[in-house]
Amino acid sequence: MKLNADLGESFGAWVMQHDASIMPLIDMANIACGGHAGDALSMQKAITSALANNVQIGAHPSYPDMQGFGRRSMQMSEVDLVATIQGQLATLDGLARCQKTHISYVKPHGALYNDLMTDKACRQSVFKAISSFHTVLPVMLQASPNNEKIRDEAKEFGLSVIFEAFTDRLYQKNGLLTPRSKAGAVLSEAKAFAQALTLIDSGQVLADDGSTLSVQADTLCVHGDNQDALELVKKIRLHLLCQGKK
Amino acid sequence: MKLNADLGESFGAWVMQHDASIMPLIDMANIACGGHAGDALSMQKAITSALANNVQIGAHPSYPDMQGFGRRSMQMSEVDLVATIQGQLATLDGLARCQKTHISYVKPHGALYNDLMTDKACRQSVFKAISSFHTVLPVMLQASPNNEKIRDEAKEFGLSVIFEAFTDRLYQKNGLLTPRSKAGAVLSEAKAFAQALTLIDSGQVLADDGSTLSVQADTLCVHGDNQDALELVKKIRLHLLCQGKK
Amino acid sequence: MKLNADLGESFGAWVMQHDASIMPLIDMANIACGGHAGDALSMQKAITSALANNVQIGAHPSYPDMQGFGRRSMQMSEVDLVATIQGQLATLDGLARCQKTHISYVKPHGALYNDLMTDKACRQSVFKAISSFHTVLPVMLQASPNNEKIRDEAKEFGLSVIFEAFTDRLYQKNGLLTPRSKAGAVLSEAKAFAQALTLIDSGQVLADDGSTLSVQADTLCVHGDNQDALELVKKIRLHLLCQGKK
Amino acid sequence: MKLNADLGESFGAWVMQHDASIMPLIDMANIACGGHAGDALSMQKAITSALANNVQIGAHPSYPDMQGFGRRSMQMSEVDLVATIQGQLATLDGLARCQKTHISYVKPHGALYNDLMTDKACRQSVFKAISSFHTVLPVMLQASPNNEKIRDEAKEFGLSVIFEAFTDRLYQKNGLLTPRSKAGAVLSEAKAFAQALTLIDSGQVLADDGSTLSVQADTLCVHGDNQDALELVKKIRLHLLCQGKK
Repeated sequence: MKLNADLGESFGAWVMQHDASIMPLIDMANIACGGHAGDALSMQKAITSALANNVQIGAHPSYPDMQGFGRRSMQMSEVDLVATIQGQLATLDGLARCQKTHISYVKPHGALYNDLMTDKACRQSVFKAISSFHTVLPVMLQASPNNEKIRDEAKEFGLSVIFEAFTDRLYQKNGLLTPRSKAGAVLSEAKAFAQALTLIDSGQVLADDGSTLSVQADTLCVHGDNQDALELVKKIRLHLLCQGKK
Repeated sequence: MKLNADLGESFGAWVMQHDASIMPLIDMANIACGGHAGDALSMQKAITSALANNVQIGAHPSYPDMQGFGRRSMQMSEVDLVATIQGQLATLDGLARCQKTHISYVKPHGALYNDLMTDKACRQSVFKAISSFHTVLPVMLQASPNNEKIRDEAKEFGLSVIFEAFTDRLYQKNGLLTPRSKAGAVLSEAKAFAQALTLIDSGQVLADDGSTLSVQADTLCVHGDNQDALELVKKIRLHLLCQGKK
Repeated sequence: MKLNADLGESFGAWVMQHDASIMPLIDMANIACGGHAGDALSMQKAITSALANNVQIGAHPSYPDMQGFGRRSMQMSEVDLVATIQGQLATLDGLARCQKTHISYVKPHGALYNDLMTDKACRQSVFKAISSFHTVLPVMLQASPNNEKIRDEAKEFGLSVIFEAFTDRLYQKNGLLTPRSKAGAVLSEAKAFAQALTLIDSGQVLADDGSTLSVQADTLCVHGDNQDALELVKKIRLHLLCQGKK
Repeated sequence: MKLNADLGESFGAWVMQHDASIMPLIDMANIACGGHAGDALSMQKAITSALANNVQIGAHPSYPDMQGFGRRSMQMSEVDLVATIQGQLATLDGLARCQKTHISYVKPHGALYNDLMTDKACRQSVFKAISSFHTVLPVMLQASPNNEKIRDEAKEFGLSVIFEAFTDRLYQKNGLLTPRSKAGAVLSEAKAFAQALTLIDSGQVLADDGSTLSVQADTLCVHGDNQDALELVKKIRLHLLCQGKK
């Protein structure tokens, strides 16, 4: 079970979080590539840090909306969306190649991620963008009861899928996340750690109705926004080490 | 003698010129890559058109200033300038690779071009940016009496230089261009065509004092801004064809 | 019957159309204010030109999306949308006050205009933004069979409405425009002129099914994109002059 | 002696510092207005907070360079620079008027501030921009031995000047600041507090050569970047309170 985190979300003088602290604890870094965040300098630094920590580099493309941090849905034509995603992949990958590495996967960001999970047309545009990139890249998406359907759709574009689960979000019994707007949607650190353990050890979570739910995930999404989040990641990493899972 | 032109200078709905008309007439397209102009869609289109017309693709990086079209000098630190140039090369090159081609050279744009011709520190930052790109790329610069000095400086960074001359600009006897602010700095179409012929046929221009000047250039910079400019390019291309020089 | 046109849609070196030609022919200029187009310099120029031609200045706010020219719907929270609209009004109005004039009305642009015509929540956000501006301003919207309903909604925010009709678009019998995607949606110049005449003289248009439709409009939207469009505006203006309607 | 601080330096999801903590401690808030930082939402919030804390609102215009946070000099024509400054003042002032207040002064930001202190042409462009704004506004500049000269220059544009001194920077004996690149340029908190006291109580600072220097300032620039900086501001405010100077 790998750990992935969103990183490199700076823009000029603005820094979103302290990447240096979380980089040693994760396996896969989703690096902002100029859509919702990230400029050439922040990408260079994130790549250097990922290399130093032996972390895989993933592109984290977004709707082109820095001011909105990629959190606002945008109604884009397919040709427009494909171009903007390809451009973002190209920038990060090219900068990675300047450091003798390359991007290894793609995880869409924010509103784009949410939209593609529910809208097939959006999903197909994203798949098209990735499949027409110059290198074969898997796409990272949310693990859900629709894993097989999504895997099949991706396959039609020649793409493989990496499924991720969330440690700090309450799952509904239908396998989807409880919307953030609802009370209890974001778990306490203790509950998040418990959920991480069951995800790692048995591929299961406790759903909102108390039932046990199977979640087939290849990687856990973790956060380094603050000290508490970081402590949780350390505990999860330590658990993985003790289990010999990394 | 090759012909090069600046292209792909759109941004969203705004179009700077009609690239389709000039693309068949040139050998090298300097494509805007997001610094002064150019978004992913305009880059894709310019690459497609260059491929269709068997034209070499060059990156046309700039100070990061869309609103100023790269015409305003910016005082950037070396690390900042190197990053922004590398990011621009990466974007265009990656999008080119998605179409199974790649960038072949770099021609700095606007204020950056002017600054590096007169400021060694700026020149060295640009050379550093290009030489640390993942692919070896020559740099296109203005032919001047300093060709050898500049060639030597570039060599220290492992770079070769492509020198370009201008058909429509009056040369001073010192081999530099008459500043645009001075009367007569921009030649009439008739004089520009005459200058193109002497540059092609004998590597010479008539300087502002009536003397004959030697200008060692590998390529001529031409423009497609308007119908007159385009007619001039057609005449130059026809001359090259008749000379069997292409 | 007043004529209004979208203007000031430049960005830096990019110019969308030649405003100077249409300004003398219209009564109301909808000036881009930094959302989909327009920077401080283009706004200054448009204001100066409007003043010189005795044309009313309207703000033309948009979703914040220069690269998409405001043509892409964006899902913004009310607080976010209200702020961006207010900021755009503030910029244009303040620049107008530097020239001892001020903005007189607001016409939303592009996707925002379309969204508010169909989505009440969007409409209310726009009304809220305008009604909380420091000066009372009417809003310009599309004349439709819903005029009264929209007028009532606006009234609740203390706003009056200016209704506009389109000369070059085919109306459906339900009073709405035929979508651009359908054949015949955009009228020929001859038909557009005929439609302008009936709108001016009798407040009527010929709908797509041949029926006669009443369209209650205060102003006609005209365009200055190209020479043909400009000739049409000249003919409409001449008709208004002859009718003594201006 | 008033205290001023730079505020409102957010952009979208990125926050530069915690304005809420410093606002109650200062008299004048220099609010970013879209040049180096600041969008409509951040401006609205800063205005609301300034009003709630009875703090004067100043515009903090910059070269148009968000990615560089206004710290990179840009070579702009006068017409261009005047327009961008006026546009920034217009935006902030208009948003302030929506809250029934207005801007009260202008303090240029970053590279623009530094450039105008040394370059008369830049200074005159800035003075021109402010003097052609629709409201009379004083300009805040660095107190130096050139106070009288600068005051005279501003007077020619009808502007008055507010001079500011720095608590945490080492002054050279010539009355200018020691460049940040030199050791000791930024004072420790203890030294900064001592310097604040002498500035407040006697209009003097201890220069780098141990001599006593007279600095005629109307306001002290303070910072709220971190907890230490904030503690310093609290101590300075307390001193002013005890002196009955506020």
